[in-house]
Amino acid sequence: MSARDEVTIAVLGGGTVGTSIVELLEANAADLRERVGAPLRLTGVAVRDASRSRPGIPDALLTDDPMALARSGADVVVEVMGGIETARECILAAMAAGSSVVTANKALLAEDGAALYRAAREHGVDLYFEASVAGAIPLLRPLRESLAGDRVRKVMGIVNGTTNYMLTKMDEEGVEYDAVFAEADALGYLEADPSLDVDGHDAAAKAAILAELAFHTRVTIDDVFVEGIANVTADDMAAAREMGFVIKLLAIAEVVEASADGEAGVIVRVHPAMVPKTHPLAAVRESFNAVFVEAQAAGEMMFYGRGAGGHPTASAVLGDVVAAARNRLSGGLGPGESTYSGLPVLPVGRARTEYYVNLDVADKSGVLANIASAFADEGVSIQVVHQEGHGEDAGLIVRTHAATDAALQATVDRLRGLDSVRTVVGVMRVEGEE
Amino acid sequence: MSARDEVTIAVLGGGTVGTSIVELLEANAADLRERVGAPLRLTGVAVRDASRSRPGIPDALLTDDPMALARSGADVVVEVMGGIETARECILAAMAAGSSVVTANKALLAEDGAALYRAAREHGVDLYFEASVAGAIPLLRPLRESLAGDRVRKVMGIVNGTTNYMLTKMDEEGVEYDAVFAEADALGYLEADPSLDVDGHDAAAKAAILAELAFHTRVTIDDVFVEGIANVTADDMAAAREMGFVIKLLAIAEVVEASADGEAGVIVRVHPAMVPKTHPLAAVRESFNAVFVEAQAAGEMMFYGRGAGGHPTASAVLGDVVAAARNRLSGGLGPGESTYSGLPVLPVGRARTEYYVNLDVADKSGVLANIASAFADEGVSIQVVHQEGHGEDAGLIVRTHAATDAALQATVDRLRGLDSVRTVVGVMRVEGEE
Repeated sequence: MSARDEVTIAVLGGGTVGTSIVELLEANAADLRERVGAPLRLTGVAVRDASRSRPGIPDALLTDDPMALARSGADVVVEVMGGIETARECILAAMAAGSSVVTANKALLAEDGAALYRAAREHGVDLYFEASVAGAIPLLRPLRESLAGDRVRKVMGIVNGTTNYMLTKMDEEGVEYDAVFAEADALGYLEADPSLDVDGHDAAAKAAILAELAFHTRVTIDDVFVEGIANVTADDMAAAREMGFVIKLLAIAEVVEASADGEAGVIVRVHPAMVPKTHPLAAVRESFNAVFVEAQAAGEMMFYGRGAGGHPTASAVLGDVVAAARNRLSGGLGPGESTYSGLPVLPVGRARTEYYVNLDVADKSGVLANIASAFADEGVSIQVVHQEGHGEDAGLIVRTHAATDAALQATVDRLRGLDSVRTVVGVMRVEGEE
Repeated sequence: MSARDEVTIAVLGGGTVGTSIVELLEANAADLRERVGAPLRLTGVAVRDASRSRPGIPDALLTDDPMALARSGADVVVEVMGGIETARECILAAMAAGSSVVTANKALLAEDGAALYRAAREHGVDLYFEASVAGAIPLLRPLRESLAGDRVRKVMGIVNGTTNYMLTKMDEEGVEYDAVFAEADALGYLEADPSLDVDGHDAAAKAAILAELAFHTRVTIDDVFVEGIANVTADDMAAAREMGFVIKLLAIAEVVEASADGEAGVIVRVHPAMVPKTHPLAAVRESFNAVFVEAQAAGEMMFYGRGAGGHPTASAVLGDVVAAARNRLSGGLGPGESTYSGLPVLPVGRARTEYYVNLDVADKSGVLANIASAFADEGVSIQVVHQEGHGEDAGLIVRTHAATDAALQATVDRLRGLDSVRTVVGVMRVEGEE
């Protein structure tokens, strides 16, 4: 134990999150001092324009040179600038200067977390990043620490609040995708590049981070299979509802055992899926996040809360700041990189799921037999067939039993080639069934 | 960093949990070695009868002398014996011998946690106890660490699986309390002393632990207001259901600000309550546990999972063992006692809740006016009055707006004194409304 009389904090980033962090550092100063064992002192805030005053931040602490602040040797450097290149350089410089780092930067972690871990190890400093996934929900610390004696088998969650807000509106108000996109845009819910939300890339970055922690193997965003929500229609929503399901954008990371299909490994995927209304994830509405975790000994768990917003994110960041600050005082060090399992990331074709397939079919005899054969030929077993309408408007809805995603995709390709199938109107994975 | 080639573990208790811990230490040995940074070596298991062999535990490791094993100087001593006296002595002896301690003993922690913390601080060792509340659900680590930069305002949860199982049966199958008690007994769900479950004492111990961590002030089980579920009837269940509620045994810990009613402090209470069906806690069925946490910056969170059982509890214990073992290797120390706020525990009368009151009334003119006056005289405002039946069977159901528990109790006392009220059939608090 060193007899330190303060712990210094530098904050890189003066946006909503950075401002909220400074605000909480001030408002909770007395509590933080007691919980850490020494006062936290803010040494600087790097912002884009240091000439503009910020309420609650003394002008003298503002700088527009994040790199200089990163190198200043603060005990803990908080990175909430976002972006990749500058953030990486600043974090590496901070660690080289002996600072522990707390970051909320999911994009950087999912692209090149290994470089950050390596630098943290080299310089004997902490790297914490609770706020990078599911905002305020304590999720990474439980995965890294509370479940450290268990084996996680699957992580499945709603980790992008914007798309969950959009899907909730589509489900509950019957609004079409384009209208709800415009609404989310007007509300300022979308990222500057909306594709990060609606095409699933934001969720994919979080899925990579969760998968790496859960399965102790290196996973980057490039390993994640991604499908966004742009093709989900109000009709899909209505059809799902009628069958007792709701459509959610899920981030799923799971362990797959070795089998006739190939070696053991992990699969990480983000895509819309039909979830039974009885599943706890189905009840997660609006911009809330929730993550289901299935572990061998602990069984099923769910973590639910706010996935974004200045104050919730700042709460998660400050929890990490307290941990890093305590370690400074005690001489301890938090958990480092854990990728010992070396499990390979497998293609999504190895995942076992159920499919829902909506077909527009010709109304002639033998159609059902044709279609059933297409499923049988790929070894996919049918759970329910539901015929809708007659004549020109004949539609067929098929729910399969679980099969590999590869077999299901091959079945859909076969269906597309059948004369009796006019269009494959919709295909969706089904998750969360008992 | 010391160059340790192993971390030694002693387990006090050979029941379901102890056996599961030994099993997981063996089954997950390779993973644990990687996660800790050194192999974990089991040095002994204290059981009641050491002459009886246990599958999976070498006979040579068995002992019926827990105190000798506690004093043996293992790096980490795991206490899962339960009970108060022997467990306390063993834990204090283990700490005096320089061992870090992981315990699942909610009764001891809620009665005399301060003594354990004091000994841990004195001897520079860790005290972890994740498994003591809500079994496998990572809850205490998030409260102690992830939310360390925030201010928790309220913790509200279902933390006793047995009573939740019983209430679920009563709600879904219309079974009476006595029948469901007999069923739970036959299934072996009840504690040896069933009063611990049904009278709320088990939940009260957990509430005390949660309150102390959440509000940084000392709380023992004697500070907790407790009402059990023995008076809940199938009729109450049906009436609640009709109004869109479900009855749950809740453990609630909350901060109360200073007001005209008195000073600021915390209130900790366990009692059955009506929860709206739309609230996430209403969907927690069977023996599952779930805890809602409301923090100033992070907003609302929920943690859901298995609250008991050998493997789930062992998972939580092993997460703590890994943390304590890592600290041994790094020289760090986990969080210690945090009671700096010194907030007093206030009487339950200061809590603000809504009440549901079910009255059997005389069918004569002026009854409603009489009853309304009783509420008004105590300053309690009525939200809904619902008249049921006529003549001899006239019943009145009243839902109040939020008021202090003291005012509500006084109102009920007044009602009992009215000529026009034949019986106060049922009174229940309402929680979780927006």
